[in-house]
Amino acid sequence: MIKITLPDQSVREYAEGITGEEIARDISPRLAKEVLAITVNDQLYDLHRPIKEDANIKLHKWEDAEGKHAFWHSSAHLLAEALEALYPGIKFGIGPAIENGFYYDVDPGDRVITDADLPKIEKKMQELARQKMEYQRRDVTKQEAIEFFEKKGDPYKVELISELEDGTITFYEQGNFTDLCRGPHLPNTAPIKAIKLLSIAGAYWRGDEKRKQLTRVYGITFPKQKLLEEHLQKLEEAAKRDHRKLGKELELFAFSQRVGQGLPLWLPKGAKLRERLENFLKKVQLKYGYEQVITPHIGQKELYETSGHYAKYGADSFQPIHTPAEGEEFLLKPMNCPHHCEIYNVKPHSYRDLPVRFAEFGTVYRYEQSGELHGLTRVRGFTQDDAHIFCRPDQLKDEFKKVIDIIFYIFKALDFKDYIAQISLRDPDNKEKYIGSDENWEKAEQAIIEACDEKGLETVVETGEAAFYGPKLDFMVRDAIGRKWQLGTIQVDYNLPERFNLEYIGQDNQKHRPIMIHRAPFGSMERFVAVLIEHTAGKFPLWLTPEQVVILPISEKFNEYAKNVSNFLNNSDIRAVLDERNEKIGKKIRDNELKRIPYLLIVGEKEAENNQVSVRRQGEGDQGVMSLEEFASFIKKEVEKSLP
Amino acid sequence: MIKITLPDQSVREYAEGITGEEIARDISPRLAKEVLAITVNDQLYDLHRPIKEDANIKLHKWEDAEGKHAFWHSSAHLLAEALEALYPGIKFGIGPAIENGFYYDVDPGDRVITDADLPKIEKKMQELARQKMEYQRRDVTKQEAIEFFEKKGDPYKVELISELEDGTITFYEQGNFTDLCRGPHLPNTAPIKAIKLLSIAGAYWRGDEKRKQLTRVYGITFPKQKLLEEHLQKLEEAAKRDHRKLGKELELFAFSQRVGQGLPLWLPKGAKLRERLENFLKKVQLKYGYEQVITPHIGQKELYETSGHYAKYGADSFQPIHTPAEGEEFLLKPMNCPHHCEIYNVKPHSYRDLPVRFAEFGTVYRYEQSGELHGLTRVRGFTQDDAHIFCRPDQLKDEFKKVIDIIFYIFKALDFKDYIAQISLRDPDNKEKYIGSDENWEKAEQAIIEACDEKGLETVVETGEAAFYGPKLDFMVRDAIGRKWQLGTIQVDYNLPERFNLEYIGQDNQKHRPIMIHRAPFGSMERFVAVLIEHTAGKFPLWLTPEQVVILPISEKFNEYAKNVSNFLNNSDIRAVLDERNEKIGKKIRDNELKRIPYLLIVGEKEAENNQVSVRRQGEGDQGVMSLEEFASFIKKEVEKSLP
Repeated sequence: MIKITLPDQSVREYAEGITGEEIARDISPRLAKEVLAITVNDQLYDLHRPIKEDANIKLHKWEDAEGKHAFWHSSAHLLAEALEALYPGIKFGIGPAIENGFYYDVDPGDRVITDADLPKIEKKMQELARQKMEYQRRDVTKQEAIEFFEKKGDPYKVELISELEDGTITFYEQGNFTDLCRGPHLPNTAPIKAIKLLSIAGAYWRGDEKRKQLTRVYGITFPKQKLLEEHLQKLEEAAKRDHRKLGKELELFAFSQRVGQGLPLWLPKGAKLRERLENFLKKVQLKYGYEQVITPHIGQKELYETSGHYAKYGADSFQPIHTPAEGEEFLLKPMNCPHHCEIYNVKPHSYRDLPVRFAEFGTVYRYEQSGELHGLTRVRGFTQDDAHIFCRPDQLKDEFKKVIDIIFYIFKALDFKDYIAQISLRDPDNKEKYIGSDENWEKAEQAIIEACDEKGLETVVETGEAAFYGPKLDFMVRDAIGRKWQLGTIQVDYNLPERFNLEYIGQDNQKHRPIMIHRAPFGSMERFVAVLIEHTAGKFPLWLTPEQVVILPISEKFNEYAKNVSNFLNNSDIRAVLDERNEKIGKKIRDNELKRIPYLLIVGEKEAENNQVSVRRQGEGDQGVMSLEEFASFIKKEVEKSLP
Repeated sequence: MIKITLPDQSVREYAEGITGEEIARDISPRLAKEVLAITVNDQLYDLHRPIKEDANIKLHKWEDAEGKHAFWHSSAHLLAEALEALYPGIKFGIGPAIENGFYYDVDPGDRVITDADLPKIEKKMQELARQKMEYQRRDVTKQEAIEFFEKKGDPYKVELISELEDGTITFYEQGNFTDLCRGPHLPNTAPIKAIKLLSIAGAYWRGDEKRKQLTRVYGITFPKQKLLEEHLQKLEEAAKRDHRKLGKELELFAFSQRVGQGLPLWLPKGAKLRERLENFLKKVQLKYGYEQVITPHIGQKELYETSGHYAKYGADSFQPIHTPAEGEEFLLKPMNCPHHCEIYNVKPHSYRDLPVRFAEFGTVYRYEQSGELHGLTRVRGFTQDDAHIFCRPDQLKDEFKKVIDIIFYIFKALDFKDYIAQISLRDPDNKEKYIGSDENWEKAEQAIIEACDEKGLETVVETGEAAFYGPKLDFMVRDAIGRKWQLGTIQVDYNLPERFNLEYIGQDNQKHRPIMIHRAPFGSMERFVAVLIEHTAGKFPLWLTPEQVVILPISEKFNEYAKNVSNFLNNSDIRAVLDERNEKIGKKIRDNELKRIPYLLIVGEKEAENNQVSVRRQGEGDQGVMSLEEFASFIKKEVEKSLP
């Protein structure tokens, strides 16, 4: 008999060899229907794999990440089986579960798989799933595994296996398909009820552009048709909000092949939006005692050798810039902190001068492989809303609280109501992985925890997730359609003050090391604007939107009056534009609704006579007639209301 | 007999072989005393070189650049003679006249010449000058010239001569000194009455760091002692205004060896000043219909190959940036225009949309040799207040006039009262040097001339000084102590629209090429701030200065009231800081006067009781007592008055 401990600490006794499936059925028949995988002593197991010793277990349903993972991993094998049935002799790369679904990389030889083939493959998968084939786990030796795939003629698998250590190799089989796999998998294919193959992409074997490009088939599956439908609807909603699409439509930013991929060009409206965001943050930061600085976008290699960035990132990033003479070497700056440390060192500091807070909207450059680039969220050049606070240890908590205040203020002004904060602490069992004294770490971790606590912030604490140079606090927001985005960060740093020999003279007249805090509430302007576009679907808050009002004369006769309205509003600091095109008013309204300009003012004979405007709210329709003064004060009130 | 035509077109007849000196004496004995050189048919002559044919002549006095040049060039030879007398066997590089004086590069062998030696050398020069030695011109063959310097043991001169073509080599001799020289020189050393050697510097032979470093001795001479004294006073005044010195004292900017030379770090106060200048220009530009854009600081090499910048500057600038994979090549951007052309190309344009005006405070990077770097005026990274106007040919003049308006506005707001504008046209005899049709050039040149004319601008027209891609207009300002600085520029460009295939659809429904105007009223933020510091000696206009007011409590007892005053002013948008140091009020006043903060408010018991401040204007002393409200409105009025 073995002892099985459940998550609620209750203990049950079973005969050795009991399986997860049997335990679930023993607890309740309903649970047995819903369970998909099991964790046994911190290791993921198939539901019908025998448990041979005392164990803490956790049963995973669809709602758990582990449940979905087993589901989608099994679905990837199902996809592979379908492909093999349809494309005999097809060769297989890897086929993992991913955040939303799964994919399989395959080499169809001379054949080409296109989007048009996806329904056919889906159909085959459904047919196979209905056969309720079991996923069977089998231990093999490395030699057996290699022989199997050599015989089958699957060179990619052979390559993978030959790099494994012997002794731990497992195969999974279902129906006619056998795969190298660690598992776990579902007991059988029956739960895979709803199947959707999403897209086809090219993917270099092992991510190496010098090797063969395989065909990657993406898919997702669900235990119920309804869940699939909901997911597809969410995808559709996400596609509508895709910042790459909206960025183009709203003329916010563009990319140019000649300038280079991953290097955004901010078009006038995007630049206006970004500048407004920057000014908004600058104003808050001024209130909180930050000082703006400006530093160059390059620095000598020596600067990054001093900071340690070169040793850590040098080989994987943009390579050094040489000069035609004098043999100097520069690097595109990957971070602003080394420059700010050098500014700190321009003059001596006393304990009375601290904290010193240097802020910069600093554009940094980091190389990303072209395949990793994605709109504004993954770029090669981006502008951090960066600041570095140099403070005394006794000021750390207070500074942390002030940064949290700024982040709260931003979330409120931009209508992010749902966010989580993660505190990352060091692993107390591996202290040697971290720089800085025990005392400082304890103080800093305590300061962060207390600061969050005093600010009433709900946090998740992750031990072992701290950076090697200090503990940190990260913010994730949930957007209007429920997706999570990592945004702002606050990080304590004991490393750079050491490397740059930063000092202040204490009250004791001795030299001390200040603590450094890195913080970026937006993260980067590029990423933040992308998230904001997707969160608002391009309908930015009134205070922020590049164009607040568009004036639409119903015919050319009223262009002059429209111009007067525009001048009046612009002189009242309201951002108004004019649509003087010689088009029907209906078309003008439709076109401008698409531009997401919050207010449309229609002006014709009646309006011109009475010095009025007919007000239309984007997406909401007619709001009645107002005098110019009324409308101006109406808008101003709304702007004031939208800022916390 | 030959005919000599004077600048007033009067003609005189003289025997062939007459000299400039004789002509001057014939005109007036006084002129003969003042004249230093002569231009004969566009060629500079010594005054006692015979004129052998009919000629247009111009006699040059000290007031003319040509007169000073001959004077200082002769002084360089005098310096050389003095050095040879004091350091027998010394070897000579080159010794030209420069903008203010002259220098000679010498190789003293094992000996070292330091600042301490300058008085001794000056004395020797004075002694030699008094001997009234004649400068004698002598034609030699290349062979004779080489033999002479080989015999003398002057390898640098031998190297220079060996690179000359034969037939045109001249020597000049005075006293015991003979030099390779084209001339012209003074008739003799007597006019060199006032001599000052200024400094010693190292200079690589032929500017090549791989060759020997010679000793460069700088000096200046005058025909009268009084002129020298005035000049030294001006130098002293310039040294006080040196932006490198003031930039440090006022904590505006700094350089760090680790970040790299020529790469300024803008400290908080400097960044504030710069931001204010940028916002000032942004505001004007918004009024004039400019749209801000933001572009990356790098671009693919291909971008600059397209623009032609790579072919022109590539080898001499920062070298390409390679990526760890994918074999891409990027360049630090030396100019913003290629990026703006790419933005123009993001969408199609109609004749109705033009002009389009893209503005960017764009930071560009250009390699300069370390020896050329100088504070903020010669750097390796700088931010242009750049904009590119894309317009139709019929809009060119109007656009030019609008840019002139902006420049006038800036000069007025920053108190540059004295400026000259130079129109640079193409050389009509060498049309093949320029890109673009005859018709376009004529139109553009006409447009610039008319625009300047209609704006009442005094201009100097320089034929042949246009860029290859278009004519231009440059502005030079004269600062408070009379020095000239090149600032803003407006340039027409036919080249980039061609290279980037820029187009608009005309009223005729056909494709047309827009004209591009480059313009930067400040030139660059770095250079402009440097000029502004030197122009104002650090006393910036009230609207611009980073800190407008400093509050000085007479003792710690009044720190609280001082804080209230500071809050009141900051809430009224007045930039006020506090000096709460526990120092005597006299010291506080002295320290803050040095910081050039325009207003010092002294607060003690009486002020605190009556809610008042005692007002002191920097450099001007006590201005009486005011209530807080009075002072705030007083300051605001002064700010308003200082903006045009």
